[in-house]
Amino acid sequence: MLTETITLEGHIIDSRALGNVLDDILALGGEFKILEVAIGQSKYERSHARIEVRAKSRKALRDLRRRLSQHGALWDAPDDAELTPADMDGAFPDDFYCTTNQQTWVRHGGEWQEVRGQEMDCGIRRDPPAGEFRCLPMNQVHKGDLIVCGHRGVRLELHDRQRASGAFEFMTSEVSTEKPKNTIIRRCAGMMIHARDAGQKLLLVGGPAIVHTGASEHVTRLIERGFVHVLFAGNALAVHDIEHSLYGTSLGVYIDKATLADTGHEHHLRAINTIRRAGGIAAAVERGLLKSGVMHACVKHGVEFVLAGSVRDDGPLPDVITDVMVAQDRMRTLVRDVGFVLMVATALHSIATGNLLPAWTPVVCVDISPSMLTKLSDRGSSQTVGLVTDVEPFFRSLAQAIDELDSASPTL
Amino acid sequence: MLTETITLEGHIIDSRALGNVLDDILALGGEFKILEVAIGQSKYERSHARIEVRAKSRKALRDLRRRLSQHGALWDAPDDAELTPADMDGAFPDDFYCTTNQQTWVRHGGEWQEVRGQEMDCGIRRDPPAGEFRCLPMNQVHKGDLIVCGHRGVRLELHDRQRASGAFEFMTSEVSTEKPKNTIIRRCAGMMIHARDAGQKLLLVGGPAIVHTGASEHVTRLIERGFVHVLFAGNALAVHDIEHSLYGTSLGVYIDKATLADTGHEHHLRAINTIRRAGGIAAAVERGLLKSGVMHACVKHGVEFVLAGSVRDDGPLPDVITDVMVAQDRMRTLVRDVGFVLMVATALHSIATGNLLPAWTPVVCVDISPSMLTKLSDRGSSQTVGLVTDVEPFFRSLAQAIDELDSASPTL
Amino acid sequence: MLTETITLEGHIIDSRALGNVLDDILALGGEFKILEVAIGQSKYERSHARIEVRAKSRKALRDLRRRLSQHGALWDAPDDAELTPADMDGAFPDDFYCTTNQQTWVRHGGEWQEVRGQEMDCGIRRDPPAGEFRCLPMNQVHKGDLIVCGHRGVRLELHDRQRASGAFEFMTSEVSTEKPKNTIIRRCAGMMIHARDAGQKLLLVGGPAIVHTGASEHVTRLIERGFVHVLFAGNALAVHDIEHSLYGTSLGVYIDKATLADTGHEHHLRAINTIRRAGGIAAAVERGLLKSGVMHACVKHGVEFVLAGSVRDDGPLPDVITDVMVAQDRMRTLVRDVGFVLMVATALHSIATGNLLPAWTPVVCVDISPSMLTKLSDRGSSQTVGLVTDVEPFFRSLAQAIDELDSASPTL
Amino acid sequence: MLTETITLEGHIIDSRALGNVLDDILALGGEFKILEVAIGQSKYERSHARIEVRAKSRKALRDLRRRLSQHGALWDAPDDAELTPADMDGAFPDDFYCTTNQQTWVRHGGEWQEVRGQEMDCGIRRDPPAGEFRCLPMNQVHKGDLIVCGHRGVRLELHDRQRASGAFEFMTSEVSTEKPKNTIIRRCAGMMIHARDAGQKLLLVGGPAIVHTGASEHVTRLIERGFVHVLFAGNALAVHDIEHSLYGTSLGVYIDKATLADTGHEHHLRAINTIRRAGGIAAAVERGLLKSGVMHACVKHGVEFVLAGSVRDDGPLPDVITDVMVAQDRMRTLVRDVGFVLMVATALHSIATGNLLPAWTPVVCVDISPSMLTKLSDRGSSQTVGLVTDVEPFFRSLAQAIDELDSASPTL
Repeated sequence: MLTETITLEGHIIDSRALGNVLDDILALGGEFKILEVAIGQSKYERSHARIEVRAKSRKALRDLRRRLSQHGALWDAPDDAELTPADMDGAFPDDFYCTTNQQTWVRHGGEWQEVRGQEMDCGIRRDPPAGEFRCLPMNQVHKGDLIVCGHRGVRLELHDRQRASGAFEFMTSEVSTEKPKNTIIRRCAGMMIHARDAGQKLLLVGGPAIVHTGASEHVTRLIERGFVHVLFAGNALAVHDIEHSLYGTSLGVYIDKATLADTGHEHHLRAINTIRRAGGIAAAVERGLLKSGVMHACVKHGVEFVLAGSVRDDGPLPDVITDVMVAQDRMRTLVRDVGFVLMVATALHSIATGNLLPAWTPVVCVDISPSMLTKLSDRGSSQTVGLVTDVEPFFRSLAQAIDELDSASPTL
Repeated sequence: MLTETITLEGHIIDSRALGNVLDDILALGGEFKILEVAIGQSKYERSHARIEVRAKSRKALRDLRRRLSQHGALWDAPDDAELTPADMDGAFPDDFYCTTNQQTWVRHGGEWQEVRGQEMDCGIRRDPPAGEFRCLPMNQVHKGDLIVCGHRGVRLELHDRQRASGAFEFMTSEVSTEKPKNTIIRRCAGMMIHARDAGQKLLLVGGPAIVHTGASEHVTRLIERGFVHVLFAGNALAVHDIEHSLYGTSLGVYIDKATLADTGHEHHLRAINTIRRAGGIAAAVERGLLKSGVMHACVKHGVEFVLAGSVRDDGPLPDVITDVMVAQDRMRTLVRDVGFVLMVATALHSIATGNLLPAWTPVVCVDISPSMLTKLSDRGSSQTVGLVTDVEPFFRSLAQAIDELDSASPTL
Repeated sequence: MLTETITLEGHIIDSRALGNVLDDILALGGEFKILEVAIGQSKYERSHARIEVRAKSRKALRDLRRRLSQHGALWDAPDDAELTPADMDGAFPDDFYCTTNQQTWVRHGGEWQEVRGQEMDCGIRRDPPAGEFRCLPMNQVHKGDLIVCGHRGVRLELHDRQRASGAFEFMTSEVSTEKPKNTIIRRCAGMMIHARDAGQKLLLVGGPAIVHTGASEHVTRLIERGFVHVLFAGNALAVHDIEHSLYGTSLGVYIDKATLADTGHEHHLRAINTIRRAGGIAAAVERGLLKSGVMHACVKHGVEFVLAGSVRDDGPLPDVITDVMVAQDRMRTLVRDVGFVLMVATALHSIATGNLLPAWTPVVCVDISPSMLTKLSDRGSSQTVGLVTDVEPFFRSLAQAIDELDSASPTL
Repeated sequence: MLTETITLEGHIIDSRALGNVLDDILALGGEFKILEVAIGQSKYERSHARIEVRAKSRKALRDLRRRLSQHGALWDAPDDAELTPADMDGAFPDDFYCTTNQQTWVRHGGEWQEVRGQEMDCGIRRDPPAGEFRCLPMNQVHKGDLIVCGHRGVRLELHDRQRASGAFEFMTSEVSTEKPKNTIIRRCAGMMIHARDAGQKLLLVGGPAIVHTGASEHVTRLIERGFVHVLFAGNALAVHDIEHSLYGTSLGVYIDKATLADTGHEHHLRAINTIRRAGGIAAAVERGLLKSGVMHACVKHGVEFVLAGSVRDDGPLPDVITDVMVAQDRMRTLVRDVGFVLMVATALHSIATGNLLPAWTPVVCVDISPSMLTKLSDRGSSQTVGLVTDVEPFFRSLAQAIDELDSASPTL
């Protein structure tokens, strides 16, 4: 039997890391002896465990290393990570370390350094002047960059669901329509107030159903009250919001009457034309052409917005970033300060944003279709709390809850 | 060319009957000449058209007869309907006339008589003493009953969607999530106030998601305010409502905390046991065991309810009618006076109710799944306005809208 | 510190019981010492662990007892279960033990006895002559029956997902449309062949979409080849199957042309009338009226079927059991010998069947709507492998796979 | 009463234009007299009708003009269209005529000219040298371009659903899961063979579920057999196809085992890296790195593909066009020769393609989610036949049907 020792640190009970490690050791044919378990006094304190692992062969030990690392296990006597210079622009060396969205540490010169800008599906580059390690998207590799290769000298620190989901510790990962909706929406409101009070930025990722279902007024109110600092959307949300402001319709349907306007199908294109003639959304606000709605509120309240182009865009609005990699990089920069993300009714932009977020940024994702939420979760954004409900009533209840909770108790 | 004359009467413009008749004549190879068109002055007045139809052969004429009858066309010189005595209990003669949910008239002794108790998928029996014609479910046939056979001497009067859907004239039949929800909900509230003010009964058909999503309090309020006179549901709605009243949970989840109770999965069964021990829902209310919730409100406010059994029922509650044909017949009796139907989150009971309703009873059907609404519509309940939204927020907004509209203008 | 010892036995690694127990002890503020772990040599051998549990107070110990029992922990020095006579018909004593679908043992006279007829949401009765313990639905309680009350002297043996799901050990519980469908269908075919070869009965629970989508011929072939021994369905499946056999249509749509028949909406009612006139399905087969289809095959091949009534039934067919509690009890009897269950496109009958099955009967549930599968899983049928796919292609591929696999390797 | 005469030409019965025109005249308070109706002998011949329209006021007449024009009515004595020079780049004059996807004619110099490149949500420009009228996307406007403004001198020729949907004349627009799937798939196969035999190009618009569900082999076979000439997709389809070719997995799941590969979540990124290192898909094929799959088949068989970028793309592959307007314009060019479009499992690319297609290009759109199909139809692509079914089985059945039908009768 070969013997090594691992250490587990952090929220190893809440994250079920301890149990998973022991079960996996046994399932892979190994044996264990628990040397030490020290549990944090309160739920949010860190715990600590040392476990002796025994395996029958070098291969068995290697498999155990890889598997247990995924639970955050730290092996005794680790090596430094291997750094290889990129041999070309725009691609990694073949055996590059591929990141997850979990907090990652790289060992260098015998010291563990936390990786900056944690994001899934990247490589890790050592930035020369500061010597920092940082996640790097593939298309930003430059020849000569020092890239972490292999699994050696890299470890993860798993976040417990609780820390990520905050007030949502109660939620299971299952997506279901049969939940007490208003209770959950009030928790969401509480988290938003908490994030705002903590000085964190709140990000809204939204689709055009916000306008179609008649929720613009609620979203506008959230912006005015200071609960949206960044907006990620596409051409469609902005276009239909502006259509609504100019014509009272969305996709040609009057929001306040639910009837189809006579040449309503032309409205969205005329709205785009108007903004293009004005030179952009901010210019249209300035000139008094655009007087209400979500985009108007964004301009008035300094909300930073990224309108990322898509191949189905009409127009598009001058503010749309038509190169998707440019748009993605702008989003990457903006998510760094974000403390809470609300995703509503857009698969495209939600998955795009989920790709950029570290696992510890809390996300609430709202869609009327359960399969949208399953897709998001399949793609690794496991910290997401999925809420299957309708867009307009969601924002209506959310705005009401914020009004009540914010005045009642400023810090919840 | 064989020539005959047809008459169209009623809402032939709103129902597009005129256009459909002309298009179908041409499509089937016939020719037409419009003899007379008299259009009602206002939208709701009846119109009238006489059209000469020419066909190339007797077969072509027969096909035209059948097709145009579906648009409500009345052929000149019709015969009396054929009546055949049933030759056995529980089944019709082979060529029985099969009803739709459209208003049907039977010609007898040269007079057109309106069929009573209009309902799809029935036969028509001549009730001997009064000489009335009445829809009859197959399992209620008695040997010797006089049953209408063949298509001769039967005509339909089509209802325009507008008359049936009232304030929903704007709605297309399409089921979509991307509609202005609150506007539609306010219209629904207006229709309910209108029906209540007209002295009609309001029927709620509901599933257990009403309780799971936390909407019981809103439904209770609707009952207290006099907007529900009849309730159709299954064991599950009543059980989880009572579970909620007794334990605060639904399917074991605390409604006000959204957390799972420790032995929560047992609650619904213990709730059933409690009611069975008490001898039924009304008895439990009387004894003070059941003090709140939807079923409690039904008992207190004299709402007539049918809890129809299903094969998946636990318990069931003593109030559940376990023979489905008995339950169906009880529902058949109760829908006769109903002026407005709200169906929420139950495919089974909604389709069951839709089967029993004439085409002119307005129905609003709410479900978070569009496919549920498509199913209902596929099964012939075409007067249904489908609303894809979430249950709790729907009832929350509906109750708010009723509060506002009812005080503002008692008759809308 | 209070100290007790627990034993875990069975598939404690595969079921993650060991890890869950240790994590829960720590999460509830307790401590543990692993006294012994003996792991089965092969995956399917049973394992064994003894763990010393320490708690700070009697209350903490009680909470631990309840929580760890849910993972199958057996506490040293257990008491006998408490038996209380029922004080009335049709209801349990207030503190009755409420069953799950996990294998349950009751301690009596110092001996552990396995509970028979394991089924969720029942009580447990001691059957006097044999002295056996057996699950008992609430409505079958007789005054004087000895009912297990409280939690003492009852323990569970958890089944690992693997044992239940057999060839589906690879499947996670997540319901997703984005899976390699044919691979999964071939596994399902393998399990069906395996069950058949093992002399177990196969149960098909099916909805009318089987006929609407054109899958009857495949299902008929499965019946003919001996892969369906029991069928649970409602009136609708049988009616549309017979409509298809008599008229070539389902809901009025020709299956082989996908066009609407001229008076197609009448066909299903005429089909029911025909069978009622004949005196039932078997009689119609005998008289040569019904010559093809699923129900014909059932009659010809001795498949036992339960057609459970529902409140939306037209007719119904004479074979339908209109009292749902009678139907449920007939199903309860028939599931006892079943070794594999295939549920397709029916929420009602699938959930009804899921309620009756012990956790170790493998179930594959197929539906085109993910939310249907989520509902089933929410209701405790956790052994179910959910497959989101379309009905006709599913049966087409399944029948092909069975043809190939069955001839290739009779025992897989 | 003001009197004018309109002419209806084309498939006025199949498109229900005649009936719609008459109903609308009456609904808007006008009167009519049918002067002449000449119906084509066969279904596909053109018909002709002249109708005298009477209105009470000039306003009523103007409303009638606008409404009846939407049914393709041609008014006697029309004017030439108004042409206005664009006053800036990238935007139309304010009152530009906004196109639909129906065949449009512009009157110029007393002659009706058919508009080229028909596409919805564009303007119409007169191209100076040839004097042709052509649809023009907003972002391609140059200052000085002559743009059609107002509605005068523009008429539509409506296509009957039949012509567009070919063999699908039977299909209603309703999206339902309860249809005979294989019958519909065989019709689709027939249309594809017909289009291929007519020398038309076939366009496949596909999402990554093609790979996830295991349908790549069927799609590859369609390409090899000459049934795909153009492919529109995103990065994801190509990436997972290449992941599958290199690793056997899609999203990390082995397609032939349905099990998760050990570090499977890294595969797609390593696949992208490999192609980026090789310099692109064609280069990877050339060097023998990429030996199978959909993209390999495209390269080998000269299928033109557009991989349009989206903001959620990892990598992306070097072949992805990251500027969405460039990608859209490339798609615009390629759809011009296309005679049949198959859209599968991608909302983004399907809607993008639907935007570019004239109403007479037949489209079959396949998705497992009905709401995706409703969205497409809400956005104006009304010629689309929606099929709710699963991806892998769809392609499996389609490929089988093509094999059978193509050998049996080359022209169907």
